[in-house]
Amino acid sequence: MAVPTGDRHLVEQVLSGEELLHGSFLRVRRDTVRLPDGGQTTREYVVHNGAVMVVALIDGPDGLQVVMERQYRHPIGKVVVEFPAGKRDGSEDLLLSAQRELREETGFVASEWAHAGVLHPLVAYSTEFIDLWFARGLVAGPRQLDAGEFLDVITVSPADLLQWCRDGRVTDGKTVAAALWVQNLVSGAWVLDWQTDGAASAAG
Amino acid sequence: MAVPTGDRHLVEQVLSGEELLHGSFLRVRRDTVRLPDGGQTTREYVVHNGAVMVVALIDGPDGLQVVMERQYRHPIGKVVVEFPAGKRDGSEDLLLSAQRELREETGFVASEWAHAGVLHPLVAYSTEFIDLWFARGLVAGPRQLDAGEFLDVITVSPADLLQWCRDGRVTDGKTVAAALWVQNLVSGAWVLDWQTDGAASAAG
Repeated sequence: MAVPTGDRHLVEQVLSGEELLHGSFLRVRRDTVRLPDGGQTTREYVVHNGAVMVVALIDGPDGLQVVMERQYRHPIGKVVVEFPAGKRDGSEDLLLSAQRELREETGFVASEWAHAGVLHPLVAYSTEFIDLWFARGLVAGPRQLDAGEFLDVITVSPADLLQWCRDGRVTDGKTVAAALWVQNLVSGAWVLDWQTDGAASAAG
Repeated sequence: MAVPTGDRHLVEQVLSGEELLHGSFLRVRRDTVRLPDGGQTTREYVVHNGAVMVVALIDGPDGLQVVMERQYRHPIGKVVVEFPAGKRDGSEDLLLSAQRELREETGFVASEWAHAGVLHPLVAYSTEFIDLWFARGLVAGPRQLDAGEFLDVITVSPADLLQWCRDGRVTDGKTVAAALWVQNLVSGAWVLDWQTDGAASAAG
C-alpha cells in the first residue's frame, strides 16, 4: 500500500491555546484545534525543551560494552536500566548537551561522536524529542551529578542488553529504541558517520 | 561490572503529594520525596492509566507485512508513522484493550495473539506503561474510529520499517522499540508464545 503524499485529511490547525500548568519541572498547554473534518477538539500536552541520549561504547578486554545507568524513576516506582540521557539546557547545541550529560552522569569524555537520529518518546502528549548520539574513545573522569541525582553506572555487553530488552529487565522506551541501533551497528547492517571531537582529542 | 543488588542508595520515599492539574486528558501530580542521602526534592509527573500497542502481521502475497498507521500528532506537529496503540479503558484486561484498539483503528480482527513485553515510554515524567502485543491471522472489517480520530492504515515490510527507523522517517519511540521485536522475530532470534483467541476463531 503506498503512503499518501497529501496529508490534509490528517492535519489539525491550531485555533487557540492556553497554559494549564507552569510547574517547577512540567509545563502543560491545552490547544483548541480544528480537525480535518471541520470539527473542533482540545489537545493537552507537556511542553519540553528537548533531550539527548548517549550510547557510549567501550571496546575493552571483555569485548564491546555499552555504558548504562541504573536510576530510580519515581513516576514508575522502579530502578530503571537506561542509557545516559538528559534535558538540553536552553538552546544549547545538541552535541554539546550529549557531551555534557555523558560527562556529568558517567564521568566519561569521548574522542569520537556520531549522530544516530531523533526519537519522539511520547507523541500523544509531549513535545519532547530525544537526540540520539553514539560516543567512543572514552576516557574516565570524575562525575558531576546534579543535586538530587543518584545513579549507578554499569557496563553491559550488547548481547546482555538485547536479552534484557527481550526478558523485561529493560523496559525504558528510549533505551529499547537505542538497542535497535546497537544491534544493527554490531551486526554491521547500519553504519555511523564518526567525527573526531577536537576539544576531547586535544585534551587527551 | 556487576549490577548491585541493594538499591537503597537509589530509591526515593514519598513524603507527600498533591494533584497539580486535572485536565480533560492529562492529570499531573507533584510529590515531595526523600532522597537516598536524606535530602528532599519534588517530582512532577503525568498520571496515566496505561496503554497497549499492537504489531499485527500479514503474511500475504507480498511477503510478511506489518500494519501501521499515519496519524497527525499535534504535540510535535507532524504526521507520525506508528503502530496501532491506545489507552486502556479503566481496568480493562490488556489483551482485550489490544484487540479493541486494533479493531477500532484498523478494522482487523486477529485469530492469534502473543504478549511480547512492556515499555515505559517516559520514565522521567509519566507513569504510563505500554503493553506490547503481536497479532496474526487477520480478518479485515470496518473501522470504528473515536470522535476526533483521523488516521491512515498502511502495511509495511519489516525491511522498510527498519530502513525508516534508520533514516528518520520513523521517530516514534514506542514504534522504534517495537521494531527491535520485529527484527528479532523475523530473524528467528526471538520467539513468541502464540495463543489462539477463542472468540475470534469461533467468529472466523
